[in-house]
Amino acid sequence: MFKRILAAGLASALIPIVSVAQEPAELSPEIEATALALIEQAASDEVGLNFVEDLTTEVGQRLAGSEAEALARDWSVAELTELGFDVVRIEPFEIPFWSRKSESVDVVSPSPQPLVATALGGSAATPAGGVSGHVMRFESLAELRAAPISQVDGKIVFIDETMIKTMDGSGYGMAVRKRSQCAEVASEKGALACLIRSVGTQPHRMPHTGIMARDGAEGAGPVAAISGPDADQLTRLLERGPVEVSVDIQTEIKTNAPSGNVIAELTGTDLADEIVLIGCHLDSWDLGTGALDDGAGCGIVVGAAMLIAGLPERPRRTIRVVLYGAEEVGLFGATAYAREHGDDLDKHVLASESDFGAGPIWRFQTRFGEAALPYARTIQNLLMPLGVTPDDNRAFGGPDIGILARAGVPVVTPGQNGMDYFDYHHTPDDTFDKIDPEEFRQNVAVYAAFTYIAAETGWDFRKQPEPDTEGTQ
Amino acid sequence: MFKRILAAGLASALIPIVSVAQEPAELSPEIEATALALIEQAASDEVGLNFVEDLTTEVGQRLAGSEAEALARDWSVAELTELGFDVVRIEPFEIPFWSRKSESVDVVSPSPQPLVATALGGSAATPAGGVSGHVMRFESLAELRAAPISQVDGKIVFIDETMIKTMDGSGYGMAVRKRSQCAEVASEKGALACLIRSVGTQPHRMPHTGIMARDGAEGAGPVAAISGPDADQLTRLLERGPVEVSVDIQTEIKTNAPSGNVIAELTGTDLADEIVLIGCHLDSWDLGTGALDDGAGCGIVVGAAMLIAGLPERPRRTIRVVLYGAEEVGLFGATAYAREHGDDLDKHVLASESDFGAGPIWRFQTRFGEAALPYARTIQNLLMPLGVTPDDNRAFGGPDIGILARAGVPVVTPGQNGMDYFDYHHTPDDTFDKIDPEEFRQNVAVYAAFTYIAAETGWDFRKQPEPDTEGTQ
Repeated sequence: MFKRILAAGLASALIPIVSVAQEPAELSPEIEATALALIEQAASDEVGLNFVEDLTTEVGQRLAGSEAEALARDWSVAELTELGFDVVRIEPFEIPFWSRKSESVDVVSPSPQPLVATALGGSAATPAGGVSGHVMRFESLAELRAAPISQVDGKIVFIDETMIKTMDGSGYGMAVRKRSQCAEVASEKGALACLIRSVGTQPHRMPHTGIMARDGAEGAGPVAAISGPDADQLTRLLERGPVEVSVDIQTEIKTNAPSGNVIAELTGTDLADEIVLIGCHLDSWDLGTGALDDGAGCGIVVGAAMLIAGLPERPRRTIRVVLYGAEEVGLFGATAYAREHGDDLDKHVLASESDFGAGPIWRFQTRFGEAALPYARTIQNLLMPLGVTPDDNRAFGGPDIGILARAGVPVVTPGQNGMDYFDYHHTPDDTFDKIDPEEFRQNVAVYAAFTYIAAETGWDFRKQPEPDTEGTQ
Repeated sequence: MFKRILAAGLASALIPIVSVAQEPAELSPEIEATALALIEQAASDEVGLNFVEDLTTEVGQRLAGSEAEALARDWSVAELTELGFDVVRIEPFEIPFWSRKSESVDVVSPSPQPLVATALGGSAATPAGGVSGHVMRFESLAELRAAPISQVDGKIVFIDETMIKTMDGSGYGMAVRKRSQCAEVASEKGALACLIRSVGTQPHRMPHTGIMARDGAEGAGPVAAISGPDADQLTRLLERGPVEVSVDIQTEIKTNAPSGNVIAELTGTDLADEIVLIGCHLDSWDLGTGALDDGAGCGIVVGAAMLIAGLPERPRRTIRVVLYGAEEVGLFGATAYAREHGDDLDKHVLASESDFGAGPIWRFQTRFGEAALPYARTIQNLLMPLGVTPDDNRAFGGPDIGILARAGVPVVTPGQNGMDYFDYHHTPDDTFDKIDPEEFRQNVAVYAAFTYIAAETGWDFRKQPEPDTEGTQ
């Protein structure tokens, strides 16, 4: 698909469409030609795709704070150095560590049968041997909140809320609320444990894990996610009468465990102290190999940077690739980065991250100063032949660079088609074979193009209208 | 789909098509009308579908020889009695019993990571704590057979043979050979254990179990199946260098465990001693809830029989529904049935079984006496509007009634579309939600129609040409 779009559309790349309110800024013919050449080269990218394949194969899962995550950092440093980045380093930090040791959820009566389940990250352990109790089903977190203590006390709570598929992942926020709050609300009302229908959208017997609290390793109570078919099974059983379930979750917790951000740079020329940051996160959940979440993101930004590294000269500004650590368990890498670089955030001219799988990019959001919107339009027009639609100036940034956006760093968010993302997200099924190479390469093309333009033009994406020139928009 | 076909096609049901070599036998207008009415009623069947839903919910998995299989027999007797069968009984027998207690397969080096794996039924246990060794990969069982002992001794064998999707399941026979023979061949050459790529066709991280020996509970060596993505991962790791894997399989074995066939009959009228047998198997593997394999088959034959039970009068011959026990672990129910009923197999006028999921029936094979082929054609013509194509007279019968076919009992095989069957077969994902109700009901329609005709017409499906009338076809 990508190649076809590319072939058909490049010629008209810079013709503004009728409905555009904002006129594009002018781009020098040399920069435009180079950006288009990068897009074309991305169509046969191997570097980015190999990065994901190798990372997910040679390291596998990369749970935050684990030995595997440390291996992933060392592996990345070696790999990025060999690829030819000018500077490669680790910025270490410490995090609270949580890991599952064992977990099982079983129907005890009326008909003994195992349920496919996984503890949520940060779940409290049950007493050894587990807990057993009757299941009380709720259709939403709100329904659980509204329930009297007498209905919940001594029970095992089950929140059976479904999640819908969307292009932009907009179902995730709501679905995640039950994940993060069930244990606390249930425990307060005396529940023994909480079960949730997995936050996910596929019909297979795959459980979706994910963090249940943002503040570290200690959970309010035991909480596990069961797969969609198991949630259906439990609901069918409950329609027939009382159901008793046992939940056994054993965990390992450490107060301090090592994590870190891996940083690789292409050093700029005359504007070397100005930084264009493109990021992803290196850690993953433990069930799969973190191919879509977020090996793909790392492959995309590394692949894009290496296309630019292949140009005869480095762009003017420094391109900084950040492979964040410990994203899944509470955005610890993002916080550490902001702490470490808080003094030179004004030198961060643009930031972007890829953390939504490897589906094709279909829209392009920015968060620029108002007078910088012509730059957005220029980039958007250039990307349109790839199937990317211009979008608004309200980009949130993403989990890891959101903190930079809130501190005033201009960001762009290339929005990926996430219709299938939550089929695999946080499951054992998040593996390399789920990445479509053509779609992946369209991402590399987009990142290479805007990163290069941002680094080479010297444009100020913070730019505000002059105080005395009202009505410029 | 089914309803649409039904509406469009019923009127032309009995018009023979041009290419038919065999003229159909004449069917009385009353029987034809009743058969067509049954087909129409099947389109809104609830009994059959509820049977699968209830069985897979209220019992769940039904491993042969387990307490769950015993529960399934008792549950079935209660259910079939309540549905109104004239006779319901269990014919008990004993089997060797094998069950997994625990299993794990892990990459030990170069990068420690768990593989999604399941022991094959009948696998030998490893010593406590498992075995570890370097992996030796083969692309086929034949390649393993050809390998010198020096290449295999002390290794963990990995057969990475893929299986293709087919309508008729014809890829299964070959794929199953590696499942049944890897442990033996590998053990003879001194291997520590055998891993196979799962016998299955889906891209998910689901392992497919299945029996590895037909002769009971004792396997030649430890053997496990890993999921497709894990087989890919292991292959990628091996491309990069030596890989050490640990295999830990612990099992429970009993020499004698209870199993049994559940039999439910609609007693015939003037030909009550003649039997039309329609069957399925009640046991399942332990990972899923056995919805497609073979809860669906049981629902289809029970649903079909109950449609016939709803007629004003019982058909002339007895309709016997057989829910075979212990099919998965070595066709023990089939053998027990043949032993128990060996003296009256000549009274079995027709047999058929449903054991290939719930996909729509697209062809109809028979194994009749040559002079009975006009009866086949009549039934086939009647079923054509449902999308069922006439097929040859070489029906094998199926796993459980194959033994009857070989003993001379006429059989029919309604061939289901099994393109997706091996996506779920023997995995945790074989659950009720995978059944498409419309497709399921098309099956009920087919079974109801041919079972009724066979029971009501009194036709002799063994019929051979008269010795003095050569050339009859």
